[in-house]
This record gives sequence, C-alpha cells and structure tokens, in this order.
Amino acid sequence: MTVAVNEYEGEQFELTENGRLLDTVPSPRTARYPDGSTIDWLQQDAAERERNQALRSQAGVRGILIPMLEASRMWLIVIVTGIGIGLTGASLDILVKWLGDIREGRCSRGFFYNQVTCCSDVDPGEICKEWQTWSQYFDIKFIFVQSLLQAFVYSILAIAFASCAAFLVRTYAPYGFHTGIPEIKAILGGYVFDEFLSPWTLLIKAVGLALSVASGLSLGKEGPLVHVACCMVSMIAGRFKQFRGNEAQKRKLLAAAAAAGVSVAFGSPIGGVLFCLEELDAFASESDVLWRGFVASAVAAVSLQWVDPFRTKKLVLFQVTYVDDAWRAFELVPWIFLGVIGGVLGSLLIKMNVQIALYRRNSALHDWPILEVIGVTAITAAISYLIVFTRVQTSELVANLFQECDPAKGDYHGLCNPTAMRENVFLLILTAGIKFVLTAWTFGMMIPAGIFLPTIAIGACLGRAVGLLTQGLYRLWPKAWIFVSCPPDPSVKCISPGFYAVIGASAMLGGVTRMTISLVVILFELTGALSHVLPIMISVMTSKWVGDALGKDGIYGVWITMRRYPWLSQADYHDQGESGASFMKPFDQLVVIQDEECTIAEIRRLLQQYTYDGFPVVRGHNLVGYVTRIALEQALDRLAFTETEATAERKCTFSPQRSRLPESDHVDLHNTIEEAVLQLRKEVPQEQVVSMFQKLNLRQVLFTKAGVLEGMATKRDVADLLMSHFPHAGALPPTPC
Amino acid sequence: MTVAVNEYEGEQFELTENGRLLDTVPSPRTARYPDGSTIDWLQQDAAERERNQALRSQAGVRGILIPMLEASRMWLIVIVTGIGIGLTGASLDILVKWLGDIREGRCSRGFFYNQVTCCSDVDPGEICKEWQTWSQYFDIKFIFVQSLLQAFVYSILAIAFASCAAFLVRTYAPYGFHTGIPEIKAILGGYVFDEFLSPWTLLIKAVGLALSVASGLSLGKEGPLVHVACCMVSMIAGRFKQFRGNEAQKRKLLAAAAAAGVSVAFGSPIGGVLFCLEELDAFASESDVLWRGFVASAVAAVSLQWVDPFRTKKLVLFQVTYVDDAWRAFELVPWIFLGVIGGVLGSLLIKMNVQIALYRRNSALHDWPILEVIGVTAITAAISYLIVFTRVQTSELVANLFQECDPAKGDYHGLCNPTAMRENVFLLILTAGIKFVLTAWTFGMMIPAGIFLPTIAIGACLGRAVGLLTQGLYRLWPKAWIFVSCPPDPSVKCISPGFYAVIGASAMLGGVTRMTISLVVILFELTGALSHVLPIMISVMTSKWVGDALGKDGIYGVWITMRRYPWLSQADYHDQGESGASFMKPFDQLVVIQDEECTIAEIRRLLQQYTYDGFPVVRGHNLVGYVTRIALEQALDRLAFTETEATAERKCTFSPQRSRLPESDHVDLHNTIEEAVLQLRKEVPQEQVVSMFQKLNLRQVLFTKAGVLEGMATKRDVADLLMSHFPHAGALPPTPC
Repeated sequence: MTVAVNEYEGEQFELTENGRLLDTVPSPRTARYPDGSTIDWLQQDAAERERNQALRSQAGVRGILIPMLEASRMWLIVIVTGIGIGLTGASLDILVKWLGDIREGRCSRGFFYNQVTCCSDVDPGEICKEWQTWSQYFDIKFIFVQSLLQAFVYSILAIAFASCAAFLVRTYAPYGFHTGIPEIKAILGGYVFDEFLSPWTLLIKAVGLALSVASGLSLGKEGPLVHVACCMVSMIAGRFKQFRGNEAQKRKLLAAAAAAGVSVAFGSPIGGVLFCLEELDAFASESDVLWRGFVASAVAAVSLQWVDPFRTKKLVLFQVTYVDDAWRAFELVPWIFLGVIGGVLGSLLIKMNVQIALYRRNSALHDWPILEVIGVTAITAAISYLIVFTRVQTSELVANLFQECDPAKGDYHGLCNPTAMRENVFLLILTAGIKFVLTAWTFGMMIPAGIFLPTIAIGACLGRAVGLLTQGLYRLWPKAWIFVSCPPDPSVKCISPGFYAVIGASAMLGGVTRMTISLVVILFELTGALSHVLPIMISVMTSKWVGDALGKDGIYGVWITMRRYPWLSQADYHDQGESGASFMKPFDQLVVIQDEECTIAEIRRLLQQYTYDGFPVVRGHNLVGYVTRIALEQALDRLAFTETEATAERKCTFSPQRSRLPESDHVDLHNTIEEAVLQLRKEVPQEQVVSMFQKLNLRQVLFTKAGVLEGMATKRDVADLLMSHFPHAGALPPTPC
Repeated sequence: MTVAVNEYEGEQFELTENGRLLDTVPSPRTARYPDGSTIDWLQQDAAERERNQALRSQAGVRGILIPMLEASRMWLIVIVTGIGIGLTGASLDILVKWLGDIREGRCSRGFFYNQVTCCSDVDPGEICKEWQTWSQYFDIKFIFVQSLLQAFVYSILAIAFASCAAFLVRTYAPYGFHTGIPEIKAILGGYVFDEFLSPWTLLIKAVGLALSVASGLSLGKEGPLVHVACCMVSMIAGRFKQFRGNEAQKRKLLAAAAAAGVSVAFGSPIGGVLFCLEELDAFASESDVLWRGFVASAVAAVSLQWVDPFRTKKLVLFQVTYVDDAWRAFELVPWIFLGVIGGVLGSLLIKMNVQIALYRRNSALHDWPILEVIGVTAITAAISYLIVFTRVQTSELVANLFQECDPAKGDYHGLCNPTAMRENVFLLILTAGIKFVLTAWTFGMMIPAGIFLPTIAIGACLGRAVGLLTQGLYRLWPKAWIFVSCPPDPSVKCISPGFYAVIGASAMLGGVTRMTISLVVILFELTGALSHVLPIMISVMTSKWVGDALGKDGIYGVWITMRRYPWLSQADYHDQGESGASFMKPFDQLVVIQDEECTIAEIRRLLQQYTYDGFPVVRGHNLVGYVTRIALEQALDRLAFTETEATAERKCTFSPQRSRLPESDHVDLHNTIEEAVLQLRKEVPQEQVVSMFQKLNLRQVLFTKAGVLEGMATKRDVADLLMSHFPHAGALPPTPC
C-alpha cells in the first residue's frame, strides 16, 4: 500500500492561508484506506469534525464563507449526480430499445430509429411501412426462409451483444458483472472497495448493461443501474478533497446516488429512497442522508421525465387502468395463494442460484466465463424465439401482462380470448418455468445483470395464470356463493386478471428480495395502482412470512454471505446466553504492541507479518490505547528519512505523559494513538455487543476491566457470527476472478 | 412509588413448573418504572433475553411451544389492535359526520341518520326531502328568522360540543388534550408516562375528539387518533405479562399501533409506516418493528375499508381526478413559490402557536381552560358561519378545493366561475388567514386537537388561490412565451387549480411538520395523485429548506422542547471541539455509593433525598458498577422484613468477590449491581457521546479511565444540550395542569 501523502497537495491552496494544515503532515485520520479493509466510522466522523472546526475557525469572512461553500458543494454533487443518473438511465433506455429492435428489423427512414420512433408518424390502426423486418429488407418471399432468417438474425445478434458485454466486462472491468447491490450494501456498511467504483467500471457497466439487456437474456437493468449511479457519484466526489479524504462522507453521497439509481430504474422516486432505507440500511443513522437521498431521487426522476425515453409523458412504467375498480373480499383467497407461491418459489430461486454459483465456481465453467455467456445466450435465444411470450423484451411482456383486457387496445397474443383459457394458462406457466430456470442461471454470469425485472416477469406470468383460472371458475359458476359479490352475469367484468399479475409480481419479489415497504411503494409507483395498495401489501406480507420460514436471507444477503464481505446484517441477533467473552479474541491470542518495549524494527516486522487494520497498545496488561495500521505506516514513513540502524532499535513511546522525555532513547509515537477507544466489560451479553456493532458501525471493541485489556472483537468476528447460519458462507471469494 | 412485587403473581403459573422463577423475588429488571422516569433500553433488552432463555430452556415440548405461543401472542396483539383501530376510526368518522350534520338539520327518516345516509335513496339531481334544516323542521317561513335560527343552532351546538369535550378532558383525562404526538415521541424514546396511555384517556380522548371535531373548531383528528391507537395497544398489551413487565417490548407494540393510527386517520397504510419511521423515529433500530408496523397498518386499513364509513369503497379520502394529466415545466414557478410560502407560513404558525401557548400558561386563561374553549368556539362558529368556505367541515372544504372543475359535478360555491376569479382569490386568502389564526390558537387548548387537517386546509386555500391566479394569467395572455406548452386556446384545459391546492397543502404541511418522505406518501395516498408525485416532492423540498432556515424544529419538536420531555432528537449534532468532559458531571459532583462504607440507613436517606434513577457504586474513586433506584428499593423492601436498628447500621457490599464474607457485618447487595455498564474515556468528542446516546438509546454513560470513575452524563443532560438552541425550552411543565 502506498500512503497517499501526495494526494492532498492538489487542493492545499484551500487551507494554506493560516498555515495550519501545511505545517503538519496529513493526520492518520485523512489517510486512504486500502481496498478490502473496513473503515472506522467513529474515526472518520472525528476527522470530519476536526476539518469542520479548522474551517470554521478561520479568520473573518472566510470562516463563514468556506463552510457554506462546502455545504453548497455537497448539494451541487447531489444535484449533478441526480441529473447525470436521470440522463444516463434515459440514454440506456433508448439504446436498449434500439438494440432490441434491430434484432427483428430495421427502419427504412434511418438505421438509428427504433421501431416506435420509426412508426411515430403512422396513425393508430394503420400498418407501419417504414419498419422492415429483416426478411422484408432482404426481400425474401418464402415463408420458411423468412422465419429461418428472422430466427437466425435474432439469435446471432443476441449472442453478439451478450458476448460483447461479457468480453468488455471480463477484460476491462471484472467488477462490472452481476447486479452490484451486494457490494454496494457492503460498501455502504464501511467496506472499502475503490476498484468497484472506478470510472472504467462505470463505463463498462453502463455499456455492458445495455448490451446484455438487449441480448434478451433473462436479466434486468435495475441493480446495475444503482451500481452505475454509485460509480458516477464516486467519480464526481473524487474531484473534491472534502469527500476524497473521508470515506464516511463519501458513503453518505453513495447512499443518495443509490436512491437516485432506483428512482430512475423504476421511475419510482419514493421507492428509491425507501429501497436505500430498507434494503441498503443506508439511512439507519442519519436523517440528513435520508434528506439527500430524497433530493437526489427527485432530481433524477425529473431529468428522466424531461428526456421521456418512452414518449409516454409519465414516470409510471407499467400504467394499469383498473385504478378505479373496487376489489372483492373473495379475491383475497387467490391473492394469499399467490403470496404463498411467491414465498416458496422465491426461496427456491435463491437456493438454485446459490447451487449454480457454487457449481460455476468449482467446475470448468470457472475458466470459460465468456463461453458460458455465449452458451446460455444461445439457449435463451433459441427457447425464447419459440414461445410467443418470451420473444419480446421482458419489460414489454410485463407491461402486457399487467394490462387489463380492453377491446379498444387489441388482444395481446390472444391473452384475452376466453375460449383459449387453458392454452393461455399452460403457456403462462411454461413461460414462468423457463424464465425461472434461465434467471437462476443468468444471475451471476460474467455480465451486468439485475434480478428485479425477471422476478417480476415470473411473478406476473403466474399471477395472470391464477387470475385467468379464477376468472374461468367465475365464468363456469357465476352464481356460486363465493362469487356472490360479483354480478351474476359473467359477461360483466368482475375479476381483473391483469391485477393478479401485479399481485403475483409483488409476491415473487417479496420472496426473492424479502423487502416489504419499499417493495410495495416501488410496485405502486411502477403500476399506478395506488387504490389497490392493500392487496399488494397482503401478498408481500404473505410471501415474506412464507419465505422467511424457508430461509432467512434475501438474495442480496445470500450473495454477501457467499462472498464473505464484512457486512453486518441489521437483523436482530439473539444469543443463547453467551457473553462478549465467548467470541472475543482473548489477550494472549492478540497481536499487541508493548509500550516502551517494542522497537521501530519490531513494529515494521509486525506490519509486514500481519494484515490487521490496527493493534492495541498495552503496558504489561494495561491498555494504553489503539493504533491503526495506517497511522503506524505514516509515522514510520516520516521516520524513514532520518532512520539509521541505531534508530531502528529505539523503543517507541505511545503514552502522552511520557512523550516529554528526551528523544535520545525513545521514539515518540504518542500522536498516532487513539486513547478514546470504546471499551466494554467482557461480561456484556453477546447480543448487546452485536447490537452495538450494528448501530454504531464499529470496527472493533476492546474488552477491559479496570484498565486491564482482556480481549478484543472485530467487525469481521461479528459478521462471521451473523453469517454462521448459512451453509455456504464464504464459498465464493470477494473478487470475481 | 410502590414496587410492583404483587403485579407478577397473577400469571406465575406460566413459569412455575421448573420452580426457577418462584424462588427468586422479581429481579430489578422486571420492575415497573415510575411515571416520569426514562427506561434503560439495554437493561430491558437484557431482561427480555433472560426471559426468553428461561422459556426456551424448559424441558421438552414446553421449551418449543411456549416461545411459539409468545410470538403468536405478539402477532395476535398487533392484529387485534389493527382491527380495533380500524373500527374505532370508522366509528369516529360516522359519529363526527352525524354530529356535524345535526348542527344544520335533522333527518325525518330517523334522528340517527346523517345527511348522506338520509338521502342515500335519492337519485342524483333530485332534491332530498328527507333531510330537513332546522328552519324547515320548525316550519319557519320568514327568511330572516330562518337564517337567524340556523346560525343560532349552529353556534349553540358547536359551543355545546366543544365545552362538553373540554369538560370531559379537564375532569377525567387531563392528558387527553392536544394532539399527543409529542408525548408519543417521548414515550417511544423511552420516557415513562403510563397515565398518558390509560383506558380512561382512551375513552375520553376518543369521545372528546369526535365532539371537538364536530364542533367545527379549527382542528383535525389525525394526531389524537394516533394517541387513541397507542392507548388501545397499551390496554391490550397490559393483559399479558410478556409486555407489562417489559417497557421496551411495550414500546415496540406502541410503534406498530401508531402506524395503524396514521393509517386509519389518512386512509394511508404506507404513509402510516413511514410516519412512524420518520417523525417518531420508532424503527431507527429494529427491522422487525418496521415489519410489525407494516402489518398493523395494513390490518387497520383493511378493517377501515370493510366498514367504509364514507361509502366510497375507497381508502383514498380526497380522490382527485387529474391523475392522467401531464404537468408543464412552467408550472414549477408557482409551485416553488407555494413551497416558499409554505415554509414561511409554517414557521410563522409554529412561532405564533408557541407565543400563544406561553401566554396561555402565564395569564388568567391558565385557570379557565373550559371558558377559553367556549370563547374560542363561539368566535370560530360566528366567523365560520359568515364565510361560505369555513361553514362546512374542514375535510369537506379540502375535498372540494382539491377537486377539479367538472361541469358534470356542479360548481362548489362558484369556485369554477371564471368571471369571479378575483372574488374567489380574495375569499380563499381570507379563509386561509382566518384558519391560520384560529389554528394557532386552537392547537394547545384543553381539547383533543390535531394540526394536520387545518394545516392542509390553509395550504389548500392558498394553493387554489395561486392556481386561480395562474389560470387567470393564462386566460389573459394565452399566447405568452411562458405558456407556450399550453394550447393557445384558453378554453382548453391546461392548468388545474385543484392540483395547486394539493401542492399548497403539501408545502404548508412541510413547513409545519418538517417531514419529507412520509409527507409525500401520505399526500398521494390521500389524493391518489401518484402521477404528480414529483411536484409534490419539489414543493415539500422547497418548504422544508425555507422552513429549516427560519427555525430548526417542526411543531412536534417544539412542543417536546417546551414541555422538556427527555427526548433525544435524532438530528445531527455538531460540537465546537468540546469533549465528553465538558458536559459530564464530574466525580466530585456525583451522588455515589461507597462500597463497603455506606450503611443501609444511609442508602435509605440517599433514596429519599435524591430523585435520580440510579447511582454509581465506587470504592474510593474506582468504579465497582452502577445500581438503579428500582433495584435498591426492591432490595431494601426485602430487608425491611428482618430489619432492626442494628442492621440499619450495617455496611453494604456490592462487589461479587466480597459477597462470600460472613453476613454478620455486611449486607450483601451484589446482585443489585450492574457491572457491565458502558464506560467511555472523557476525551471522547462530545459529538460522539451524543451520537451514542441517540443510536443506542442510552440512559447514562460513565466516564472512566483505567477503572477510575471520572464523571457521568445522563440522557437528560444530552436532551438539554440538544434543546438548548430553542429559547422557550422547558417553558411549559410536562403535565398540562
């Protein structure tokens, strides 16, 4: 690791006038954390506090203006990021639509029009002649050759897109694969992973996302868009020392960006904020972060709506039309049934996905990620082309499944034909099954891939099927007691299969992600079905109950556990009567620094030998304080200029009261040490120790009694404890290679 | 205070089989807290943990079944409470409607019908003959006498309702006045205030609420309904030892009930959960509390919808009809203007309300609360009867202001008449002004009164006025560049003044309550205007920014500060470089117990002399542990049976290692002491101490160094620190008398 002394010179002009900060070397608190470590929130907050005081203590107007400048810079970043994400999201939408459409044909008015813009001049009902399928373009007469050509182009382009995405990811940004949500959860919790947020990752993930979505694979753009948003804010914040120097401050911006990402992905500004709150635990502590997320989310949604990529003048993606219909009590039966199905299938999807990930890791596939992508894309394209519901882009399928039957709008592939009820149900369940297997495999391949949209699609298929069955029963026995609240004439509309699709989607999402309130909000922001919020709540409730009974974690939590990121689940932990003593590392197993005994050379060896983030300093068994690796390295780097062999054998003093002794026999390191470190008695219940780690986001706790160090517990210990129930904990390494 | 030893005998059968809990006297952890103290969350959680372990460790099937029984009991309480609140809310709605209507007339079909049910058989357009105004009923011919009679009955009944409510509250439940939200915030934060949640308060608050709302005073039912919900769950939970014995567990149920209360008040199940999250900080720590709130909120909304008090078959109270209209960018100008107005007026309302509360406290009004209510009601009734917009119930006014002009639905008091634009704007601003003054006075009188609905009404009036002005401008200059996105023909609809009313309401609410995300959700659940979520977000953002610049706290925070409840605001606190040392009480000012020196008699004196919740136990300056008042009182009560004068002079031992000495010269109190108490070094930054108090909900922190006690800080110290910026902190006593 190189200590980032020079990193700070770029903006020194900001603080040089009173000469305070130039005289001192950067304090350990502003040093950069290496990738893979976890940040110390308390320390970072303290650093921010010191910096703010230094700013405010400046003479005269500067003492007022500079803090204001800093605050406005923060808001500027939030707003610019919001706008950036809105525009990025809109461009990706346009790109995906175009890429998806050229798999079927091209526009004669110009190659870069998609089907909708190409046909925008045509009146409804009229046939659009500007848009040509490939067989029309090549002017092929035979129907058989026509379909063959269409299928061929469709599949070849799908494979080309997907392999291109996989190649880009594999070569330029290995962290750009997968959804990114687990990593962002870990990062927001304090994990340091700068590579994951690099500008290269931003570019590759955005481009790769467009390609992989357009390839027709069973994946969505939602999670990766959050990742893109976080990369973007990280890049912008990196321009300002205020955030570059402080990981905790940077994380507050990341949380706001994540909210904006979800906001754009679903056109759901409130849902975005709540997603951050519930799934990312991002605002657990600070209300001003919630507030920033709110602003970022609103700004992003405004800029998305300004571009209006779908030309609907609306944020709502899958507008439903039954908002004014009342629902009947008997419908709770199929809806709760859907909730149960969602819980069971959600758990099953997680389990299958885990098994496939483990298989991928331990088989030959591990060495051929691009080939795997090509193979899966070929299979997906082949199967998808055969079934009418899977051939279109997933978002189009979902939009149609959510839609009510309306003679004015036409019948989507015969879905509203009452005589074809059995065929439709069969086809829908088949589609759900195929998507289920493909999604379980696709989520985790070497391409950017989100799980939200495919899950919605699976749920929507099942929901629509259940809706059709309920409708069928009603048409058979319209006068049965259970349908008493419906009109006795079955030709009158009573049951809305489209809304059953929404219920199915929410149940499936509940089972896979185990979100509650943010899920409900996202769903009604997606569909506009505000008046039906209660059934959505009930199905999410049911599926979460059932899912939780079958397995504790949602899919993101499972991936975090498999990768063994040091992330603390906020779930309630209950011990079996253990105290802190039972999981702390006792004193005799700790690597400690003995005050006034350890030499410089010994400290150097210690730093080389161990990778720990910090070391307790003791005198005998008495605790003096805690010193971080970064602080030690910086102090030693400073010494290196004057170091001779004699100095290397000098002993180090860490106690402030001793630091006034002559320097001839001691090296004074007292300002590297933190004295005000949190101490607990080891009799404290384990539960309480865990809850302190969770709420204060601690990195370590020292157990002392009357000043004597008895042991220590780190975030890693707590994370391992919380993950221990999952059999595959740590099965995949943190990096994807 | 009587220690509640006998309280636990009722349900002892539950745990007697293994004899564990009968042999011991109740541990200090299950003792009851007296009113006015604050609970120790860590201790309460520890108690719950011990209880759970005792339950699980039981032999055989009981060890599995009893924990399951406990969990299902918790869910049962949540669901029963949800249903109860839904039904209560619905009954109150019906009662208020009826009481409000008999101020104007009566139903000839039966005295207990309100106007709507009385006329439910009448076709639209036909005149309802069943409903008779009072002048029709008394068959008065002269128009002048008619109006005089109507005004007389209207005012007399208003005064009768209000004085009745005030009398009930004053006599039977003095805690039933005001909104209740500040108290609930304090209670959820750990304040103990059992009187506030008593069954009497429940009954009086519910009845008084119906009377005060029906009296036409400028107040709403939202806050008080949350209070009613909390009383209800407190009463139900009090039936079960599981919750009666543990204040922390009880608070988790209270949070769920509060969510249900808001859910019913606004017909807004998601908004209810978010209100608890944002305004009450109720789920800051635990995700399972969020989940319970979600369930309670959904159940309450389902039962409200089942009763359907307004016969609309909808939860949405103020359904708006412009959900499908797009909005134009230029409209952001009036909307942001409304946001600014809302922020300014919101702050002004808070300041006026504070001044009136102080005046009430320090003037003759203090001794004549009922007379004050009668006077204000008389003035309100007189003014309200004169102005057409204030004569109707506030909710009816708001519903009409939110409504779009639709020729099919008729014109509400000429509001849609384009030629009467100036008159309408004048009338709306006048209405807003009158409501503003009346609300500032009414909120704090001796009746149940919420601030939400009047605030919405003020904002809606102003918003509609701004909307009418904008529409007027557009009609004057339809071709101006700013209106370029509107059709050039002014007779085509382009601007929706009804939606401006929604924006005005959200801005005003933002200024008064300083909520963000929950406010937006409540508003679109109230109106169904989901597609217009962005403008609502923007206006709330603006008004919060402006409001925060004019004063830090929302109205609930201000009342908490005025009453000086020990409640920790979750706001970020930034110190000026102080450490914990600067606000701790140093050792020489602490009341401590000297281990092995203090006698029983001395401890008795200590308990009588001081009201502190607990005392540090030291040997010399070395910390032994912390002992709570409750634990000491219980131990002394036990001793009282055998106490003679000689024992009273015996010294007390608190150290476990000494407890094995012969009892002849010592009294062994070692099991009253907590050893595992949180300790910090006094060098810890003040900011960090405050943040630990906020996040862990601590009651006290001891500052030690190497086992030596240096000082102590309590929740009260931190609360005072956080309240110190407000000039009127502690201006009103915690109790309303």
